[in-house]
Amino acid sequence: MEREEQLPRKESITRTPFSGSKKVYVPGKIHDIQVAMREVSVDDAAIKGPGGCGSVVTIYDTSGPYSDLALDIDVHKGLPRLREKWIMERGDVEQLKDLSSEFGKDRLYNSDLDHLRFKDVKLPLRAKSGKNVTQLYYAKQGIITPEMEYVAIRENLRIDELQEELSQHPGESFGAATPDSHITPEFVRDEIARGRAVLPCSINHPESEPMIIGRNFLVKINANIGNSAITSSIEEEVEKMVWATRWGADTVMDLSTGNNIHETREWILRNSPVPIGTVPIYQALEKVDGKAEELTWNMFRDTLVEQCEQGVSYFTIHAGLLLRHVPLTVTRTTGIVSRGGAILAKWCLTHHKENFLFTHFEDICELLKQYDVGISLGDGLRPGCLQDANDAAQFGELEALGVLTKIAAKHDVQTFIEGPGHVPMHMIKANMDKQLEECGEAPFYTLGPLVTDIAPGYDHITSAIGGAMIGWYGTAMLCYVTPKEHLGLPDREDVREGVVTYKLAAHAADLAKGHPGTQYRDNALSRARFEFRWQDQFNLALDPEKAIEFHDKTLPHSNAKVAHFCSMCGPKFCSMKISHEVREYVKNLKNGEDTAVGKGMKEKAGEFNKSGFLDFSG
Amino acid sequence: MEREEQLPRKESITRTPFSGSKKVYVPGKIHDIQVAMREVSVDDAAIKGPGGCGSVVTIYDTSGPYSDLALDIDVHKGLPRLREKWIMERGDVEQLKDLSSEFGKDRLYNSDLDHLRFKDVKLPLRAKSGKNVTQLYYAKQGIITPEMEYVAIRENLRIDELQEELSQHPGESFGAATPDSHITPEFVRDEIARGRAVLPCSINHPESEPMIIGRNFLVKINANIGNSAITSSIEEEVEKMVWATRWGADTVMDLSTGNNIHETREWILRNSPVPIGTVPIYQALEKVDGKAEELTWNMFRDTLVEQCEQGVSYFTIHAGLLLRHVPLTVTRTTGIVSRGGAILAKWCLTHHKENFLFTHFEDICELLKQYDVGISLGDGLRPGCLQDANDAAQFGELEALGVLTKIAAKHDVQTFIEGPGHVPMHMIKANMDKQLEECGEAPFYTLGPLVTDIAPGYDHITSAIGGAMIGWYGTAMLCYVTPKEHLGLPDREDVREGVVTYKLAAHAADLAKGHPGTQYRDNALSRARFEFRWQDQFNLALDPEKAIEFHDKTLPHSNAKVAHFCSMCGPKFCSMKISHEVREYVKNLKNGEDTAVGKGMKEKAGEFNKSGFLDFSG
Repeated sequence: MEREEQLPRKESITRTPFSGSKKVYVPGKIHDIQVAMREVSVDDAAIKGPGGCGSVVTIYDTSGPYSDLALDIDVHKGLPRLREKWIMERGDVEQLKDLSSEFGKDRLYNSDLDHLRFKDVKLPLRAKSGKNVTQLYYAKQGIITPEMEYVAIRENLRIDELQEELSQHPGESFGAATPDSHITPEFVRDEIARGRAVLPCSINHPESEPMIIGRNFLVKINANIGNSAITSSIEEEVEKMVWATRWGADTVMDLSTGNNIHETREWILRNSPVPIGTVPIYQALEKVDGKAEELTWNMFRDTLVEQCEQGVSYFTIHAGLLLRHVPLTVTRTTGIVSRGGAILAKWCLTHHKENFLFTHFEDICELLKQYDVGISLGDGLRPGCLQDANDAAQFGELEALGVLTKIAAKHDVQTFIEGPGHVPMHMIKANMDKQLEECGEAPFYTLGPLVTDIAPGYDHITSAIGGAMIGWYGTAMLCYVTPKEHLGLPDREDVREGVVTYKLAAHAADLAKGHPGTQYRDNALSRARFEFRWQDQFNLALDPEKAIEFHDKTLPHSNAKVAHFCSMCGPKFCSMKISHEVREYVKNLKNGEDTAVGKGMKEKAGEFNKSGFLDFSG
Repeated sequence: MEREEQLPRKESITRTPFSGSKKVYVPGKIHDIQVAMREVSVDDAAIKGPGGCGSVVTIYDTSGPYSDLALDIDVHKGLPRLREKWIMERGDVEQLKDLSSEFGKDRLYNSDLDHLRFKDVKLPLRAKSGKNVTQLYYAKQGIITPEMEYVAIRENLRIDELQEELSQHPGESFGAATPDSHITPEFVRDEIARGRAVLPCSINHPESEPMIIGRNFLVKINANIGNSAITSSIEEEVEKMVWATRWGADTVMDLSTGNNIHETREWILRNSPVPIGTVPIYQALEKVDGKAEELTWNMFRDTLVEQCEQGVSYFTIHAGLLLRHVPLTVTRTTGIVSRGGAILAKWCLTHHKENFLFTHFEDICELLKQYDVGISLGDGLRPGCLQDANDAAQFGELEALGVLTKIAAKHDVQTFIEGPGHVPMHMIKANMDKQLEECGEAPFYTLGPLVTDIAPGYDHITSAIGGAMIGWYGTAMLCYVTPKEHLGLPDREDVREGVVTYKLAAHAADLAKGHPGTQYRDNALSRARFEFRWQDQFNLALDPEKAIEFHDKTLPHSNAKVAHFCSMCGPKFCSMKISHEVREYVKNLKNGEDTAVGKGMKEKAGEFNKSGFLDFSG
């Protein structure tokens, strides 16, 4: 199935900015940093403050430098190395003379691969002997790193400016925005130190913009990409990553299982503005030609080293799947549905031994803390259908993950916990509660959950329902699901559909949690809707392009963009239009008349009262 | 904007049955009735009971005769008049000599309309003088009508057969299916008598198959169709209705505001297997050329009569919007977003009078009980954005709706209550709780609610999240939202997307409520997935055609339908395939070996325990 690899070209990367938006950079106060955000200009009288700062809505932006047309980006050189200086200035890392991974070296020195290799690759960094370079380690030392200040500013969405506006709109709520809820760098540090938040940022991925995963921050979403033996090229995967972050992916997991995994990942990393996660067991299995029983600790460790030195920021490690859990899955309706889980279950049974990821868990921590690679503790036994939800296998593994979380914490390795899966609505909260209890509040990272099994083709929606709910309950990151889930490999449009769907679910969760400033964008869009500012509505939407496309399908003419109606109701029936007339009418009512209205109503109510059916005391 | 009307043709009506399915008819035990259902054949060893009855999954079917290819249907003659005999046998109705509505007569005797009129129209029925012909009236008298037995059988999904299978699968749950939870005709009668459920079935729409709306039954969904001044023909509207019911719409609301509303509705009714609802104020407004202030009770009443005699089964009546509520909307972010609400608010203010639907509410009840037309009490003041959710205007109107519910109950007019709208997740439950409290448990019928405002183009999803949740909390029917909401008029594919999305939300709510038998289909599909029975997966899906289409995009060959993998993971990485190997392995383990596995694990755990990090006592 080997195909000729297609490398990324300038034209294959999407760089179109969103309409009505520009990139802005907010400076740090502690460190010399510039935090990237997206600013949408709106023609909104209501939010124009005295200084005029209210005429924009600031949006959390994951698209990186691609959406800043002032920057020239060459995918063959990679993105600017934003964090390199910060990392080097800490003085606790050294650049290696060669790769440490045998496999990595084999690939690097194989001239047959020259044609598909990312050329401008640098030798990796690693902690100096005895040093721990994780953000968790720094946080525990009381150090506020530039990364921490970056995310504090990023999460705030200029909430201090919103405060001013808030004071001018006493009736309006923007979520629970109060001065106390302002996110400070110290708060970020403290949340990381407690293990309640993770800031994934490998020292070998300096191109990535800092972001934070934790339940006291905005709910994040992850998009999966990756080739398989059946489809996809390097060019497609790099563009999929850019495309996913354009629509809002906070992290991207590269789940490649096809050809040239090592080289594909290098291309992705060097061009990615968001942290990249992987499931190293997938690549390890490729190395033994798919035979799970031939996996060994040594070759798995070499895979970890290989990926640490490329710059992956977190690994899914299925270390909580224990030998004794496997028989619990035999009576399940859908057995083991996690690929990693199935691979390890097979290994355990074949060798009659405990999971080597479990027995070597401390070795893994020792390694990862030298690169600040985080651990996403995999839920290899997550339920694959409603019938298997919250069963002994799933919860047994979750208890083991709790124990492993404590071990990782001892090593100051940043850790979060993966969760299900397929769970009916009334059983979702029990997952969150148990995770918090077992795992000492380490961030939860769930796949959906899907709240029904009968809708293949619509599982981005069945899972967004569960995702929004579990996000509200406290899940820190949601792994997206595309419409193709259970059916096939997602294409470009599926990725967009999946990301936007999850973005709206995460936002719904932020609103329900009362995250500071979250409702500001909803209010701005709603005002635009009420005032028939169509272009502002589009610009403020999660997917402006789809909104415009849908609007234009029935009313394509440009004058419809300023029309005081849409094609749903036509000009005569627009409730908002009538509502404006009502508003005008009430405004023009004199006080006396207003009282008369109240009087007339009371008289009428009086009549009804006599008939015995009505009681309008109000 | 007058266009030439296009009438329905045989070819314009979708009659393709779902693959792997056939129509079955389950006979009644009390009455001579045949309840239509859809039966999916599956190749599933697990559910093949002794009599072989378990080799099918029975599905609640809203598609009516169209999906039964044994029936010859002529859209110019209309559907078979299923309930005519039942209605006539009660002896409490009489056929009129002429239409009672002036407008209806004008249209009927206008020869200019001959070319677009449904030809085979019958003269309407009405209650004999002094008679009340509502299902609520019968229920209160202790009468179990054929309609009531029909819905009891329909809701059960052959649960009695499931009971037998359940006993063979002690570990498996199908929802809270116990013999006690079996839905009986007497239970249906009692729920209707209490006003906790509504069985909408106008005596002038005998073509409709009985269905029930109440929180102790399956959650229902409504699809809106209807032309507007800008788009659509009679042919398109009839096919939209057929299309919507094919995908699962339990009722259809005809919200036409364009040309030939009366004739369009006749075509829809005569060909609809589901109850049709309308918002009569829309047509009334057309009659006064869009000038809200010119609406009068007399012409509105004539519109009600016109539609009662055509066979509409429920009317949205915005009688709870009171004059004193209107000023409460002035400080809202998006004012009044219900079209009916805006029209009536304008009327009230212009005339300085109380809402005429409120002052004439008893007259409305007197009229409707002669035709068994139900009332859907409109929420004219529902919030149009998160910022306006649960505010004084909304809840003030809801309190008024509670009072009106009691008046309608006195007249034995079947009544349900419309709800929001736009509500963030954490504020949804308060809506349900207040509705139950104010409206004496009358069924709640909500539009979404949408849980965020920032996703135009994806509002079928933002609203399905809120819809699934409020359905779980107790809402009886969900009004669908299509991807075009807020942007334009939905086309055919939007209707399908909206209906299927709401079907999955309603099903998720049924699962969470533990409705008997609901999980049976999920389990059957999940087993098919685990056993690589691709065709069974497609056949059991809410949208089999989309599932097949998505699968075939990457693996189009027919042998992929029996392959033990899919394109997501490719052949080597399929977790389910490995899971089967694991299952086989465990099965082959001898007892002694099994113990050894346990022993090995315990030894390993012992080592860890010594190191102080692990405590696996389990």
